[in-house]
Amino acid sequence: MKKISDSTISRLSRYYRTLSLLIEQKIETVSSDEIAEIDGVTSAQVRKDLSFFGTFGKRGLGYNTKDLREEIGKILGLKKTWNIALVGIGNIGRALIDYQEFKKQGFQVKALFDSDPEKIGDEVNGLLINNINDVCHVVKDKNIEIAIIAVPAKVAQGVTDFFVNCGVKAILNFAPVSIKTPPDVLVKNENMSIELEALSYYITNDLKK
Amino acid sequence: MKKISDSTISRLSRYYRTLSLLIEQKIETVSSDEIAEIDGVTSAQVRKDLSFFGTFGKRGLGYNTKDLREEIGKILGLKKTWNIALVGIGNIGRALIDYQEFKKQGFQVKALFDSDPEKIGDEVNGLLINNINDVCHVVKDKNIEIAIIAVPAKVAQGVTDFFVNCGVKAILNFAPVSIKTPPDVLVKNENMSIELEALSYYITNDLKK
Repeated sequence: MKKISDSTISRLSRYYRTLSLLIEQKIETVSSDEIAEIDGVTSAQVRKDLSFFGTFGKRGLGYNTKDLREEIGKILGLKKTWNIALVGIGNIGRALIDYQEFKKQGFQVKALFDSDPEKIGDEVNGLLINNINDVCHVVKDKNIEIAIIAVPAKVAQGVTDFFVNCGVKAILNFAPVSIKTPPDVLVKNENMSIELEALSYYITNDLKK
Repeated sequence: MKKISDSTISRLSRYYRTLSLLIEQKIETVSSDEIAEIDGVTSAQVRKDLSFFGTFGKRGLGYNTKDLREEIGKILGLKKTWNIALVGIGNIGRALIDYQEFKKQGFQVKALFDSDPEKIGDEVNGLLINNINDVCHVVKDKNIEIAIIAVPAKVAQGVTDFFVNCGVKAILNFAPVSIKTPPDVLVKNENMSIELEALSYYITNDLKK
């Protein structure tokens, strides 16, 4: 398989979401122009992103929304559910436990962790908050595949090490710090201020969309 | 000014954050190789992204961390504070009110809005929750420049229209739906499941970082 850029993968996620909305609206076919307009990219970009993975749709007829959504779902690995552990039951953690976009795409929060004795043992949305020291046991028991780190910067690396040592191979990091992992553990960083910085850039430089 | 891609702008945000961390660690110079390693890109990419905006650093000597951070801050428009209105005081809204990454980059939440009579009039972090019907008055009074929409999908467009009608020119949308605005109003969409979908893609296709 060719090396596909992160930008392409992130656009596929957007097309997937757009197709889901079109299907909800009972729209059966869509052109690359229409997808492009909704997602704010060029239609050439849409066609190029899809071309990495095969031939979809028919020239002049566009794409069948359900078929294309199904194909993109397969590419992104969204045809299964993923078991997620969430660490850090602060504001961001609480927002993520019940985040509908996760559920829609098959990301199921199955285990919660915190290090605060006041929180350990409590339940949120029917899920027990576990002691971070019990990571290995819970990861095995719940078959956890991805850990989401939503703890303060200064403890993010330590928490990551716990999960790496228990065999978790994929981490989504909300902490505002880079974390280090062995080469076989994937990390993606989520920073909710990056899109605001893009807005700041566009306004400051007086650019239009 | 050349048309710079969104991907470049988003990487500049990451370099800015990396430089801030290095400065905190009292590191005075850094090479493009070192920035690249921390941010998981190639050093050629770092140099290319910076080259759009001028010549920084000295060949063989690397970059002065403070100078480069200052320059990137200017490019991104982070040398001023931005007045933000936040609409929708649910879980995500509450997580954002006190989000340290916003504060660090100069994004100050100055006004809150909701449509729920039970919430209107309450205070969160010393900020009053306003009635969404009072948008124009509050936007003018607080000099609001950017609105963050953190409401359910079905009311996102209506809320957006309120802000557009009151002259706000930049919107960050957390609702899981595309919103439409006139050509002079910028919109960026935040979807916290996109990075998880990238992890899903990498695991499913057994790719390493």
